[in-house]
Amino acid sequence: MTSIPKLNVVPFVSVDHMMKLVLKVGIDTFLRELADVIEEDFLRWETFDKTPRVASHSQEGVIELMPTSDGTLYGFKYVNGHPKNTREGRQTVTAFGVLSDVGNGYPMLLSEMTILTALRTAATSAAAARHLSRDGARSMAIIGNGAQSEFQARAFKAILGVDQLRLYDIDPSASQKCYANLQGLGFSITICDSAEQAVEGADIITTVTADKQYATILTDNMVGPGVHINAIGGDCPGKTELHRDILLRSDIFVEYPPQTRVEGEIQQLDEDHPVIELWQVMAGKVKGRKDERQITLFDSVGFAIEDFSALRYVRSKLVETGLFEELDLLADPDEPRDLYGMLLRCEAAMQAAPEKKPEGVL
Amino acid sequence: MTSIPKLNVVPFVSVDHMMKLVLKVGIDTFLRELADVIEEDFLRWETFDKTPRVASHSQEGVIELMPTSDGTLYGFKYVNGHPKNTREGRQTVTAFGVLSDVGNGYPMLLSEMTILTALRTAATSAAAARHLSRDGARSMAIIGNGAQSEFQARAFKAILGVDQLRLYDIDPSASQKCYANLQGLGFSITICDSAEQAVEGADIITTVTADKQYATILTDNMVGPGVHINAIGGDCPGKTELHRDILLRSDIFVEYPPQTRVEGEIQQLDEDHPVIELWQVMAGKVKGRKDERQITLFDSVGFAIEDFSALRYVRSKLVETGLFEELDLLADPDEPRDLYGMLLRCEAAMQAAPEKKPEGVL
Repeated sequence: MTSIPKLNVVPFVSVDHMMKLVLKVGIDTFLRELADVIEEDFLRWETFDKTPRVASHSQEGVIELMPTSDGTLYGFKYVNGHPKNTREGRQTVTAFGVLSDVGNGYPMLLSEMTILTALRTAATSAAAARHLSRDGARSMAIIGNGAQSEFQARAFKAILGVDQLRLYDIDPSASQKCYANLQGLGFSITICDSAEQAVEGADIITTVTADKQYATILTDNMVGPGVHINAIGGDCPGKTELHRDILLRSDIFVEYPPQTRVEGEIQQLDEDHPVIELWQVMAGKVKGRKDERQITLFDSVGFAIEDFSALRYVRSKLVETGLFEELDLLADPDEPRDLYGMLLRCEAAMQAAPEKKPEGVL
Repeated sequence: MTSIPKLNVVPFVSVDHMMKLVLKVGIDTFLRELADVIEEDFLRWETFDKTPRVASHSQEGVIELMPTSDGTLYGFKYVNGHPKNTREGRQTVTAFGVLSDVGNGYPMLLSEMTILTALRTAATSAAAARHLSRDGARSMAIIGNGAQSEFQARAFKAILGVDQLRLYDIDPSASQKCYANLQGLGFSITICDSAEQAVEGADIITTVTADKQYATILTDNMVGPGVHINAIGGDCPGKTELHRDILLRSDIFVEYPPQTRVEGEIQQLDEDHPVIELWQVMAGKVKGRKDERQITLFDSVGFAIEDFSALRYVRSKLVETGLFEELDLLADPDEPRDLYGMLLRCEAAMQAAPEKKPEGVL
């Protein structure tokens, strides 16, 4: 309520606040608005400072930093990918992110991004499909029914009206979980015994499996004319989901080619295989779907601008929802050059006041 | 106090907690122990995954991410540099950092690093000088008396016994502030009218000015035989402090050549000008100071491993001090693949409980 800006404070959106924020806005509205913000940023693609993510690989997984800037705001996401985590009760992917003011370099938002990444990935898929799937697409196969699957279903329903789902997972309990979670929302859902069965008659095929290895979730004979493939799971070197022959029959749309060439399905193709940048379709520079028989493939690996958009969107919701905490993250001495003096004043204050109990327990 | 690990929680060290932690440990002890941890990590230099920092430059300044990993722990620092910030009452440099477990990618510590960077920069300078300055060095010129100056003075006293200071700044009030802040600690301090006067008789010359431009704080005639130059302020492209001729007369020691060639004083030299990696001196592979007349120059730009060491050191102090908060940063659904179900359960809980007031005000 103070009008004096507290320069030390950065708004922080915890996991609990993020859930409440999403629910308060409404999941459908959140996904729709987020898809619009992402598309808005894709339309000004050329204003962004772009770089492939900075990855630190280990035997168990990867930790990545994904920075970008539009010259006014700067954002980055920290995200890990550790497929074995699930066995230890941990998330395969966790993330958090920061949005900053380019003018002074000060962070303006620290946010959990595990939930937010799930939402932005789904919103990006649906925003792409808006331009790439056949008009009137209503049915979608979802192969891989893990943590991302329900978010994909919700986004495609909220944004495209897709209400018929065909689920398949090598682990039937994953499909059961997805089925149960999506009850009461107006979906017609079929759990399938095989990937082949799942894709039968589907307008859209979403592949979103989690194994960190070359896999063939879809073979060429499974993909009929006119289908839009939303390939989410192939997202790091050595991890793909589609048979190469499918790629050769498809028009391939990507986020940022230098990153997708290394991480996406197209790592299976020659380095100069033609791909279309999604932003150019959104901007009307290149046609997305040209006819009813064309196979379109969104080879999605997730790009920093989508996280930037998501952070920007969440930041815009803070005032109306109040769903954040104030984090004492930045040193703010009374006199900017007197950082050391701040320590001295703290010392004086500590000597004047009785010592409090330790405040955290590890 | 619970024995069940809370997978959603990341320990957070705020600015307030960092100050209390430093004071509880004691500034001298903190600097000495931190210098030892930095040297410990420099001794195993080859085990680290190293990369130049990832910088996003703008007209006003720079925002950088500095990641590194030793294969067991991963750390990164976010740091900005905006020289004009001081005029708006903000810090030129603010920073925070994260330490993570490479095995599962989960963050183990989020910490303010504005204060911590000041301490690690000073500890690194003193750790380097331990190997490079003349035995028995007692007097140091400090040119540039801004936010870093007192930390340098404290580190050189705690680690090398330097107790005679000669201060110079183009702004006399900065020298006055530094002088006042260092009273009562056993220093003999002279405020000088010029850089020339400051360096007279000094065993060590520390340059730590803040302008983002090519400057000549030291000219060749000012540097006598046997001096150790601790050059801190030249730390980004286009920002240097020393005249090129000094570099040509000195043996130059650097942290990580691919970064220093771009950011350090040696950006003034040919790309193949010989430099010595500091870690090799610490490891005894290369001799640091060879004789009493040699001019040694530590061309310091700050490297990710120093931040990694600092985060590792702070993490080691959390249990004994309890000076941290628990941050709800990571989504932790009961069933790892059921991230969406976590949202549903939050929704059910919100419907069952009366709505609380908004929790933050922007």
